[in-house]
Amino acid sequence: MSPVTTIDRIGNYEGQTVTLRGWLYNKRSSGKIQFLQVRDGTGVIQCVAVKSEVGDAVFAACEALTQESSLIVEGVVRRDARAKGGYELSVTRVEPVGGSVDYPITLKEHGVDFLLDHRHLWIRTPRQRAILKVRAEVMRAMADFLDADGFTRVDPPILTPSSCEGTTELFYTQYFDEDAYLTQSGQMYLEAAAMALGKVYSMGPAFRAERSKTRRHLIEFWMIEPEMAFYTHEDNVRLQEAFVQHVVRHVLDHCEAELATIGRDVDRLAKVQAPFPRMSYDEAIRWLQAHGHDIRWGDDFGAPHETELAAQFDRPLFIERYPTALKAFYMQPDPERPEVVLCADLLAPEGYGEIIGGSQRIHDYDLLRDRFVTHNLPMDTYGWYLDLRKYGSVPHAGFGIGLERTVAWICGLEHVREAIPFPRMLYRLYP
Amino acid sequence: MSPVTTIDRIGNYEGQTVTLRGWLYNKRSSGKIQFLQVRDGTGVIQCVAVKSEVGDAVFAACEALTQESSLIVEGVVRRDARAKGGYELSVTRVEPVGGSVDYPITLKEHGVDFLLDHRHLWIRTPRQRAILKVRAEVMRAMADFLDADGFTRVDPPILTPSSCEGTTELFYTQYFDEDAYLTQSGQMYLEAAAMALGKVYSMGPAFRAERSKTRRHLIEFWMIEPEMAFYTHEDNVRLQEAFVQHVVRHVLDHCEAELATIGRDVDRLAKVQAPFPRMSYDEAIRWLQAHGHDIRWGDDFGAPHETELAAQFDRPLFIERYPTALKAFYMQPDPERPEVVLCADLLAPEGYGEIIGGSQRIHDYDLLRDRFVTHNLPMDTYGWYLDLRKYGSVPHAGFGIGLERTVAWICGLEHVREAIPFPRMLYRLYP
Repeated sequence: MSPVTTIDRIGNYEGQTVTLRGWLYNKRSSGKIQFLQVRDGTGVIQCVAVKSEVGDAVFAACEALTQESSLIVEGVVRRDARAKGGYELSVTRVEPVGGSVDYPITLKEHGVDFLLDHRHLWIRTPRQRAILKVRAEVMRAMADFLDADGFTRVDPPILTPSSCEGTTELFYTQYFDEDAYLTQSGQMYLEAAAMALGKVYSMGPAFRAERSKTRRHLIEFWMIEPEMAFYTHEDNVRLQEAFVQHVVRHVLDHCEAELATIGRDVDRLAKVQAPFPRMSYDEAIRWLQAHGHDIRWGDDFGAPHETELAAQFDRPLFIERYPTALKAFYMQPDPERPEVVLCADLLAPEGYGEIIGGSQRIHDYDLLRDRFVTHNLPMDTYGWYLDLRKYGSVPHAGFGIGLERTVAWICGLEHVREAIPFPRMLYRLYP
Repeated sequence: MSPVTTIDRIGNYEGQTVTLRGWLYNKRSSGKIQFLQVRDGTGVIQCVAVKSEVGDAVFAACEALTQESSLIVEGVVRRDARAKGGYELSVTRVEPVGGSVDYPITLKEHGVDFLLDHRHLWIRTPRQRAILKVRAEVMRAMADFLDADGFTRVDPPILTPSSCEGTTELFYTQYFDEDAYLTQSGQMYLEAAAMALGKVYSMGPAFRAERSKTRRHLIEFWMIEPEMAFYTHEDNVRLQEAFVQHVVRHVLDHCEAELATIGRDVDRLAKVQAPFPRMSYDEAIRWLQAHGHDIRWGDDFGAPHETELAAQFDRPLFIERYPTALKAFYMQPDPERPEVVLCADLLAPEGYGEIIGGSQRIHDYDLLRDRFVTHNLPMDTYGWYLDLRKYGSVPHAGFGIGLERTVAWICGLEHVREAIPFPRMLYRLYP
């Protein structure tokens, strides 16, 4: 038997006979020739079966293949400049494996609810496959960057006795005789880990039981959360710039074919170079006011505000130093202006909104204890978090980046639901 | 100011003055000299302050440092063959950062319940830090191996409408108006993804609401689950061998200091070379019977059986072809003996038990449909899984490897609870 290979490596076999294993994506016929579009998970290739060359039996087998039936195909690799990927296969043999009758997702347009109901099949289409490939490369790029920079991966728990930001948007479960909630963020645990390991990060799922239906929200999403001991707000912002630039560069370098399949304008991505523009919250409010928005100091931004602010720039925009009252209890106040905190949100360009939220954390025991009282946080559940300020506290900072929003931006998707293999949304728990 | 560095990189600065930032792990004094053991998350180094050299003020500052107080220390890097890590620091300056009064974990022995209650601090000790570092390197090695072999990382959902193995050991949560459960395995979703992407793997948390308290069980644990289209049982077993060998080799190459801190016998790990021994379930039963066990064909193995079987070998042991009735409904029967399935469990040596479970999956629609009926599985919840056999089904296989059991084995730990940053066990949800 000829060597078994995959479509992405077929260029190594020019002129040779190889075996591919995959599925029929599409086909067309011109009488005595069948053009089979075969996909194998690594790409799509055109396999050409000429009746006079392959004989009647093989040609009939090709004719009988239906959409998404599986097959093993043998043929000779030919260079062809017109072909996607640069090669096609001159078929010598075809072995059907699994049939496929009335495949539900035809090559015409389908409604998104229908596609989501068939997500287990929808991911087979080249566009969805390409998005999932980019997602995997984004995760790889993030881990590569952090591992090379001395970070240690740490996995905070998913089941927690409580959370830092109230319980109304948390999923509840009974943990034997105790109450437990699904994590919204591993940050508090990562702060403990940073005091043990210096620089740490997590890469895992998080959950928000929010009854909202926007194109930026998922109920179950993935976050990457770096946390660094002996880090200031400024250190934190600079790290984020280098990190995001690295991720975008990695995708440009490793996913050229996928970005082409998705139809992404890569020139816009190539502009994502540090340093990124920065704007204080104060400046952002004044800019919005000057541009006709009815917004006052102390108000939070909505999605339209974020989109307009970011639209001024061709790269991501940091908005720094939000009002203390708007942000989480653990953020370090600006020493010169305690009404704002040492935080930054990073807004992606092209209307993709916030992809990162980060801050320096309060490291003073008394100040954090005051915040517990003001915010009515239960001391028994959070005693361990206060301990971090009691025993060798250090200035530290960190951030969380939303994986699906980042992938949606890099791929130029309309909705985050395509940026995760099996999206969980309001009224969407299947398949 | 002198360059800021970390203990793991201090060898690059021999003879130079550098700044370290960390915590006081321990100290001793001999009158006019203070020996500070400083840790910074990357290692521990001895910093020597000589009163006649540093002056009274710096010396007094050193004397005042307490266990786990944080500090910035400046000094000259000296090579010292007697020192752990090969270097020590001749202190020139000390800046205390955060105090630490009555640190709960002293350097004497503590009970494990006390340590688990203080897990947020316990992870600071060199042994726990080393274990977490090995865990991170194991994850890195797994991703490296699979990514290099053409796999795509895919994240199956955590919240699922149901599960493949009954609901009694599942955590329940209300998902708006629906019932949802926390995943025990992403396998079914990964099978769908393998039909789209060829070779895929997941790396994420899984949950088992089991009222068991053994040294091998966690309620929340991490699994890596590769799934491969066009793979047979034999392909699957060979992949596992190469995978486990790679992971152990990577840890030996990258975690020498950590394994030394933990006190692991690395010679035993160096023996983990493919091919691994294999035994059929039938042979294992006969071996156990011959060695005095009251066990019959059709019985499952208990931990003592696994330990004895594995103790014959210096590397992991595959046990293949278990009785169909003992294993999950989706496993492919041996075509020559349908009373057993094409599966294998991999038992780690030294009594660590099962670390991998894998199998070829049923790819025939009618056979899988029969299994649904026999096992009383709800067609509405699983219809999508049957679809995978309806549209271009192919032989496929996969496995799941338990991260904490693998780390416990590689580190030689008594209990899996130390192999995860914040263990979740029966009656253990805090911190």
